[in-house]
Amino acid sequence: MNSTRGCPRLLVLALSTLFVLGCASSPTPGAEEPKAGMEAEAVVDPLPSWNDTESKARILDFVRAVTDPDDPAFVKPEERVATFDNDGTLWVEQPLYAEMAFALHRIKDLAHVHPEWKTQQPFQAVIEGDKEALLEAGAHGLVEIVVASHTGMSATLFDTIVTQWVRDARHPKFERPYTELAYQPQLELLRYLEANGFETFIVSGGSVEFMRTYAEPVYGIPVERVVGSSIETRYEVQGGKPSLFRLPVIDFVDDKAGKPVGIHKHIGRRPILAFGNSDGDFEMLQWTTAGSGGARLGLILHHDDAQREYAYDRQSRVGKLDKALDAAGQSGWVIVSMKNDWKTVFSEK
Amino acid sequence: MNSTRGCPRLLVLALSTLFVLGCASSPTPGAEEPKAGMEAEAVVDPLPSWNDTESKARILDFVRAVTDPDDPAFVKPEERVATFDNDGTLWVEQPLYAEMAFALHRIKDLAHVHPEWKTQQPFQAVIEGDKEALLEAGAHGLVEIVVASHTGMSATLFDTIVTQWVRDARHPKFERPYTELAYQPQLELLRYLEANGFETFIVSGGSVEFMRTYAEPVYGIPVERVVGSSIETRYEVQGGKPSLFRLPVIDFVDDKAGKPVGIHKHIGRRPILAFGNSDGDFEMLQWTTAGSGGARLGLILHHDDAQREYAYDRQSRVGKLDKALDAAGQSGWVIVSMKNDWKTVFSEK
Repeated sequence: MNSTRGCPRLLVLALSTLFVLGCASSPTPGAEEPKAGMEAEAVVDPLPSWNDTESKARILDFVRAVTDPDDPAFVKPEERVATFDNDGTLWVEQPLYAEMAFALHRIKDLAHVHPEWKTQQPFQAVIEGDKEALLEAGAHGLVEIVVASHTGMSATLFDTIVTQWVRDARHPKFERPYTELAYQPQLELLRYLEANGFETFIVSGGSVEFMRTYAEPVYGIPVERVVGSSIETRYEVQGGKPSLFRLPVIDFVDDKAGKPVGIHKHIGRRPILAFGNSDGDFEMLQWTTAGSGGARLGLILHHDDAQREYAYDRQSRVGKLDKALDAAGQSGWVIVSMKNDWKTVFSEK
Repeated sequence: MNSTRGCPRLLVLALSTLFVLGCASSPTPGAEEPKAGMEAEAVVDPLPSWNDTESKARILDFVRAVTDPDDPAFVKPEERVATFDNDGTLWVEQPLYAEMAFALHRIKDLAHVHPEWKTQQPFQAVIEGDKEALLEAGAHGLVEIVVASHTGMSATLFDTIVTQWVRDARHPKFERPYTELAYQPQLELLRYLEANGFETFIVSGGSVEFMRTYAEPVYGIPVERVVGSSIETRYEVQGGKPSLFRLPVIDFVDDKAGKPVGIHKHIGRRPILAFGNSDGDFEMLQWTTAGSGGARLGLILHHDDAQREYAYDRQSRVGKLDKALDAAGQSGWVIVSMKNDWKTVFSEK
């Protein structure tokens, strides 16, 4: 049923024939009928937006190995869990995380009913667009902004507010909705993995209730397969009507060492493939590739394409990639070059 | 893929032909081909261990309605979430929750390295089997017992300890492994719902990592569809080897008003069917049946079968059913009588 959920009509139209193969809930190639799977792959390139480079070869070889019962690297279908970071891995994260753009926009809206914010940091900095003052506010200021923009309403109302923002917001550079800035090669990889018996999950530092509003239409990943940071909610019944109220308290931060914890909390299985793009994904890749029993694959998307997207790594304030880049070599992680490994970057829809 | 996961070979052998229908990952009857689904139901009784009573009729009618696109009560497949309490709903919970029996057993084991417990409550009470003193220790004492028995080791070691206990433990009355005390009518209901496009989840006050050890082999529910209480874990790397360490801190209690919160945290969708058996399930049923857009069904298993299992409700210390029993009438919840509605109680394997 999940594979049905993972394939909204929109994407079915948009993506490759193998994607359709992935949607057909018939026993997944590799999982039940490895031979059939191999043939399908021979007939149609499962990753048409990936150039025929070493990175693509590593992915294809890994999937072939874990789905071949005769291969020592074989992994049982129920253990084929693949986790993907979101911002910078599945869609653009520069110059500012979409969720942060939402938070700043929401603070400006709320400022109308919070006149005191005009002279109160970090809110004053947001209202005046004072980046320096915003940076000075640091982590504590960030929490204040998240709490003020994400809590104090029902889960239903938050969902409505986010859905409207995601629909109306435009990316400053590409002038397109963020939902059109998902990476086509990654959508193909998600469908390819699902077609080979994998269960795909988003594991992001972003807040789970923000991502749930667009994960299925944009990535074909249902809400129950989205793992992220969260705030505390309280069950309330008012006038006989139950609701979940979002409290101004951070419940969990699903980033860095929090990612293996979030994976364990939510999924309960250790991934065999993890794909990230920043130091926030280091522990997720470490946890994944240190697993035993069959092959494991860690991948890091390297943003080295200033022309088609952005070029950044060690010095970047958003999506800093330093420690994980150094570790990739000895860890055997695949560094995917956006510039060289991807034929196209964004999904055309 | 989940439907594959939901059907371990053991159960495939054990259950009805419709169950097999449910395993075949072909589009689920009702979901994609309602007509085909109806025919299948006509051919074989999907709930052979249920007597042909009003309760069974309510279930069959609900499933028919939510899977019929022409019925105003129709619910899209991706919204068909069904949540089941565990203790007392899917398997026996008297005279003591299996997990509590495990905790007491573990305390006695640990007493060998904790001589101080001989004179320290609530541990002394556990060691001496002093029920009165144990009750006096109350909620605070319970937390001490849970923390002492469930934490202070890696998630991997805890899984091993629980798995061994579940394998070796025997129920005091039935003298069978707890894993053989799952309710056959409920296993049939789980498979029937899955065959009709539902995604089934366990939502229990029990700890998620305890249930994960047996949920799939016993119920055919994969670990990622188990929602429960949890303790905090910390990601650690020692000697280059990463692990998740179980801290002596309660993270979340998935009971009473915590159930809708746990459902929202983990699943992100409001169930359209919820099945419980005690006041701990009241809010889950309330939250579920207050939902809109298509039909909703709340069910309560009433333990009124002293001969085949146990008879208890309002006065019981374990699985107290009082408030929820009173609310059932006006809420339209189905009260399932174990004595009258179930042909058989336990799965024969």
